[in-house]
Amino acid sequence: MKIEIIKIGKTRYPGISEVVEEYLKRLRPMASVDLTIWKEGQNEQKLKSLLGVENRVVALDERGEQWSSIAFSKNLKKWTDNPGIKKISFVIGGPYGLSEDFRKQANHLWSLSDCTFPSELAWLLVCEQIYRGFTILKGMSYHHE
Amino acid sequence: MKIEIIKIGKTRYPGISEVVEEYLKRLRPMASVDLTIWKEGQNEQKLKSLLGVENRVVALDERGEQWSSIAFSKNLKKWTDNPGIKKISFVIGGPYGLSEDFRKQANHLWSLSDCTFPSELAWLLVCEQIYRGFTILKGMSYHHE
Repeated sequence: MKIEIIKIGKTRYPGISEVVEEYLKRLRPMASVDLTIWKEGQNEQKLKSLLGVENRVVALDERGEQWSSIAFSKNLKKWTDNPGIKKISFVIGGPYGLSEDFRKQANHLWSLSDCTFPSELAWLLVCEQIYRGFTILKGMSYHHE
Repeated sequence: MKIEIIKIGKTRYPGISEVVEEYLKRLRPMASVDLTIWKEGQNEQKLKSLLGVENRVVALDERGEQWSSIAFSKNLKKWTDNPGIKKISFVIGGPYGLSEDFRKQANHLWSLSDCTFPSELAWLLVCEQIYRGFTILKGMSYHHE
């Protein structure tokens, strides 16, 4: 099972990237994670290539479902326990979000909050939630910190 | 009208503090903001001294109300338009949250998300939402970025 975190658009704050890297470093003993940053614009073909029966695509979107951290960890378990799923791709759009076409085709739309956050902060939160989700599944104490 | 952002507990990631400072720098032409970090433990007396008719205390808490960024900006407007309110204090507890006693006395409990976030990221999100809230009130384009 591979986890892929795709962020579209350049990062503005090196401080955010450092904290993202810190969460991924802690996550890597528990899961195989790839972090990718795509330039903005003309990503539709690349995004479509993510879609397929063996891949679970979770697109971050304000209109998506909201999950508690516990509910999210249960989703992670369901996906990682499913032998038909080889990869989970989390996709964070740029400042203007993802195309309607791609959003319709993603397996899940995930909204982090009723608030609107900048995409760079959403990216940080997604990485932290994936790390947190795995610590919950492994019974580690982090979630109660 | 003064805005005070109080974080309890030390900051672990200098990268987060840098981004917090960046949002406050952008916010300061629109509002008078003080950022304070309190050591963990024995804050009950200091927290109680915040409470009073002229101060609006917003405590961050998972069990609180969730507001969209637009709804939050409307709250900001309501509070800043009220001549009886001299200060708004946003309080972000440490890893173990705020005492039940203080939470009961705060004017508002604000929950950012169904997800649980580390207090340091909640602090960053609060600063960003306050900045975003003022840009919405001023009709600036940031919110639609």
